[in-house]
Amino acid sequence: MTPPEVRNHIKESAPFRWENVPVLPYKQEGTHFRDVTRQVLFPDEGVGAELRYFEIARGGWSSLERHRHVHAVMVVRGTGRALVGDRILDLKPHDLVRVPSLTWHQFRAAPGEVLGFLCLVASGRDRPERPDQAAVERLRGNREVRDFIRT
Amino acid sequence: MTPPEVRNHIKESAPFRWENVPVLPYKQEGTHFRDVTRQVLFPDEGVGAELRYFEIARGGWSSLERHRHVHAVMVVRGTGRALVGDRILDLKPHDLVRVPSLTWHQFRAAPGEVLGFLCLVASGRDRPERPDQAAVERLRGNREVRDFIRT
Repeated sequence: MTPPEVRNHIKESAPFRWENVPVLPYKQEGTHFRDVTRQVLFPDEGVGAELRYFEIARGGWSSLERHRHVHAVMVVRGTGRALVGDRILDLKPHDLVRVPSLTWHQFRAAPGEVLGFLCLVASGRDRPERPDQAAVERLRGNREVRDFIRT
Repeated sequence: MTPPEVRNHIKESAPFRWENVPVLPYKQEGTHFRDVTRQVLFPDEGVGAELRYFEIARGGWSSLERHRHVHAVMVVRGTGRALVGDRILDLKPHDLVRVPSLTWHQFRAAPGEVLGFLCLVASGRDRPERPDQAAVERLRGNREVRDFIRT
């Protein structure tokens, strides 16, 4: 059995890697994202929410998606950009991003950079929805968004 | 009205300070803590939980307390130590700390250092309890804890 002090103190063991916290695939296979990892820093510990760390490698992007649940994000590593709704946000360490309910969003690392961020979500949450062709066309109506998104 | 992009992107405006996020007193007045500030980075945004940033200045400490709700903590600035139960943990940036239910805890900045950390809690939570004299005496039964705690 793990001694209590080990369970209560999870040390960073390498930059943005933690003792006994596995580096997981972001999602099951797909071509709608590239080079993203996921680490669950705090599974629901009775808080009713989970804190995860996502890292997008150089050249990578997260899935373009939306869902009813909200995201509360803090950038902690590198720089990048995010689509939230119809806006592209320039992100640097410690910036906060709120992704409201049912809002299209996608995160991308800056060229030559890693983008790492904390993401807080409710434990009970709905599955993400990806845009259908009509939704993609609507998003592409905005030139800046069109150039940004990867589907 | 604040434009949506401002509400969804809260930039770090100075080290560990954020646009339109007030730096608040840690608690109402008292002598059981010293030199601690509180910033609510994400109030309950439908997540059911809140993410706060606490900063303990040089020479400061948080209240020695316990409560039914749990804390999920990530150190993001400086170094320090924490009492969790009957253990003193040495903390460095990105270390994670879980404070279980009804567990005495206190955070202190390292000498000459600031200690800043994120703390995730459920939105609906009980009020902290401070130790009565009997509880203080029990804690002081451990020499290391006795030397660490401030009441």
